[in-house]
Amino acid sequence: VTGGVVASTPDPPYWAVIFTTRQTPDIEGYDETAAAMEALAAQQPGFLGIESVHDGADGITVSYWATEDDLLSWGRHAEHLVAQRLGRERWYERYELRVARVERTASHPRPR
Amino acid sequence: VTGGVVASTPDPPYWAVIFTTRQTPDIEGYDETAAAMEALAAQQPGFLGIESVHDGADGITVSYWATEDDLLSWGRHAEHLVAQRLGRERWYERYELRVARVERTASHPRPR
Repeated sequence: VTGGVVASTPDPPYWAVIFTTRQTPDIEGYDETAAAMEALAAQQPGFLGIESVHDGADGITVSYWATEDDLLSWGRHAEHLVAQRLGRERWYERYELRVARVERTASHPRPR
Repeated sequence: VTGGVVASTPDPPYWAVIFTTRQTPDIEGYDETAAAMEALAAQQPGFLGIESVHDGADGITVSYWATEDDLLSWGRHAEHLVAQRLGRERWYERYELRVARVERTASHPRPR
């Protein structure tokens, strides 16, 4: 059992950034930047995990953070700001980014 | 611009149920039940929208609700309880369900 996309996260409360995206046909550079940002995010303070699924032009990526300050700091990271600009200008026809406080969770299978 | 998977939701605060799943190889009945549950969810009080992306055995579905009571009521809906049991017994090798309060959002393109 690998768990696939499912991230192991601690007991709540913690924070989630739900990033739902519709891509443009211009995907030049997208895969490399997305992979680099995922690796860079994982090095930031308070990073708890990331889940990402794409199907064609549609994607949902959820990253988890220990505190709101941690996710705000990642949002202001210099390399991340460059990637955000490229995303708005080139890669994303539309997106919604939602910052949410995780209050309760349920797991399957039940935690041992 | 269709927006694809991206749901249009009101200004926060509102609630999100982040349901991240890893499927088993047994998918008999899954697609029909998933479609029926999505249609049924959309009829419930406080339903704001749903976003779902799957790639092979991995999936992320996020549903949005006006209040925590609304999402709890949906979780206790009789037909939904039957589907939940089938999910645990047959379709999902692993899942995490996270209930979160959406505090802030950012949209692209910017709202008109």
